[in-house]
Amino acid sequence: MREFELHSRLAADTAFVADWKLCRVLLMNDARYPWLILVPRRNDVTEIFELAPEDREMLMAEIALVSERLKHFTHAAKINVGALGNLVPQLHTHIVARNPGDAAWPGPVWGHGRAEPYSASSLETLVGELVKTL
Amino acid sequence: MREFELHSRLAADTAFVADWKLCRVLLMNDARYPWLILVPRRNDVTEIFELAPEDREMLMAEIALVSERLKHFTHAAKINVGALGNLVPQLHTHIVARNPGDAAWPGPVWGHGRAEPYSASSLETLVGELVKTL
Repeated sequence: MREFELHSRLAADTAFVADWKLCRVLLMNDARYPWLILVPRRNDVTEIFELAPEDREMLMAEIALVSERLKHFTHAAKINVGALGNLVPQLHTHIVARNPGDAAWPGPVWGHGRAEPYSASSLETLVGELVKTL
Repeated sequence: MREFELHSRLAADTAFVADWKLCRVLLMNDARYPWLILVPRRNDVTEIFELAPEDREMLMAEIALVSERLKHFTHAAKINVGALGNLVPQLHTHIVARNPGDAAWPGPVWGHGRAEPYSASSLETLVGELVKTL
């Protein structure tokens, strides 16, 4: 089986947090919102229904776990979950902590303005906290 | 156990398609995109992780089934799946058939412009087709 390859766009926009049983957990490098991405470590999958049934169950379990822990960690008002893939075909699920008054509220974060990257030290600190929290 | 109540905003914006094992299946009354919504028939649930584990598994199974059948029915390029809930707190999952050149492509459909309702006869016809297809 060929090794899992992360899409170059996801690699460029994110920092690595962890490899879970199914998914690679990434932090979006955008300080406007606490924003994680789950990428099932399977090549050539674009739609959720293309995953094997046991992988779909694991994806749901990992979505629920990341969502709950991210909400607890950030005290966010709402978690947004989305799998769009209009630009990056590799299946990936966004899990975003949202609050009234954030840059895109109450609209979706995707396609809204430009990312505001973390400073190198902030990114390192946040990834370290997420590794402990998740 | 109290009977399931659909949020008034969801009721106003959609047409009833079917009740599945977990979810009520609704058609968004917006002719710009083939757009279904799955609402778990559970009261007082806002986040996916608040569902019982067996309900989460069923939600994933129903998301996968609706997505696959909607993609086949519409020949869409991509299915977008999203659970946002910034405006309507009742947990609901959008499943939207997307194509290059559609009204919001490649951005998300949520919050983009105004809905364009179907005519009464188009809505009835489409719901009838969906009841057979799903």
